[in-house]
Amino acid sequence: MTERGLLIVLSGPSGVGKGTVRKAIFDSGEIDFEYSISMTTRQKRAGEEDGVDYFFRSKEVFEQLIEDGGLLEYAEYVGNYYGTPLEYVEQTLSSGKDVFLEIEVNGAKQVREKMPEGIFIFLTPPDIMELKSRILNRGTEKIALVEQRLEKAVEEIKMMDHYDYAVVNDKVENAVTKIKHIIESEHLKVPRVINRYKKIVEEM
Amino acid sequence: MTERGLLIVLSGPSGVGKGTVRKAIFDSGEIDFEYSISMTTRQKRAGEEDGVDYFFRSKEVFEQLIEDGGLLEYAEYVGNYYGTPLEYVEQTLSSGKDVFLEIEVNGAKQVREKMPEGIFIFLTPPDIMELKSRILNRGTEKIALVEQRLEKAVEEIKMMDHYDYAVVNDKVENAVTKIKHIIESEHLKVPRVINRYKKIVEEM
Repeated sequence: MTERGLLIVLSGPSGVGKGTVRKAIFDSGEIDFEYSISMTTRQKRAGEEDGVDYFFRSKEVFEQLIEDGGLLEYAEYVGNYYGTPLEYVEQTLSSGKDVFLEIEVNGAKQVREKMPEGIFIFLTPPDIMELKSRILNRGTEKIALVEQRLEKAVEEIKMMDHYDYAVVNDKVENAVTKIKHIIESEHLKVPRVINRYKKIVEEM
Repeated sequence: MTERGLLIVLSGPSGVGKGTVRKAIFDSGEIDFEYSISMTTRQKRAGEEDGVDYFFRSKEVFEQLIEDGGLLEYAEYVGNYYGTPLEYVEQTLSSGKDVFLEIEVNGAKQVREKMPEGIFIFLTPPDIMELKSRILNRGTEKIALVEQRLEKAVEEIKMMDHYDYAVVNDKVENAVTKIKHIIESEHLKVPRVINRYKKIVEEM
């Protein structure tokens, strides 16, 4: 039996740069995981390919999948459905490959409920860390703006609570390196390694 | 209040190269943790300094410390005591610095009991991984030798069970990199990061 892959979920508040970081990770090479392709009911655009950019499906098919529990997570956005097909993720993990998911906070919450064993990484804006110095140099900023940022930070910290790791997106390459190191370390955890070792010994 | 540092414990079967890896980590620079200095009752040798190489103490002082629970772990070896003073570790962690301990398997077990929140890394010999190919090429090895190795491997796998991470010491620089990435990732875990963030927000 092949050892199950890891499910890696990257999420964070909107506008934090999840897509850019995900793209940079996959462009960097030296990775050994599959990107989970989403399913959508929106029209295919020029140049897009089914099974590459998205799985393009009809509204009927999508709603049937929702009913059958065939989606790891889904959302509706301007009249179209977007979601993660469970089967694709399940097959990839079973084949021993890691799956990388980059999704919105609400989607990540749904995944956590269905696959709590996943590795959940929260990408945070550098703002939280910079907030303090901004406050200390209050002269340069409007009080209302600072308060608004503070409220947003409190909200983001609340979201973060449901994740395993938090990575600041100060620079894309820093975030990419940290995320890769997290995945590497997760593979070094004893419960994973020990199974591999036990198998070697048992086979002999 | 400063956030508590991490206790990092590196151990593994004797002869695996713990000392070499530990030395390489500290020689590599780019680290932000303190090496925990051991206490011993053995004589100071030429060139050794108290508080640098060891804390040199009398047998009476050491035994009093054992009685007072002042040692994180200790062992007797050819008539002398060797141990880790709890106070030094506690003070360093409280000051917000990580502490790095490189100790024998029995010592690591004692530390696990006293500080279960530590990060326990097991260094494994490449042998376990190589065992299989050795078995497959059995012609080149004596059966008795293979069986002996197998027994040793089973024993090592049993030890490993008490650790958080397992790192193969195939090449010292690989082991060093992996250990550093583990420590980096542990610092990115949400419970640690969130406290830092909450503090920033509370201060404002």
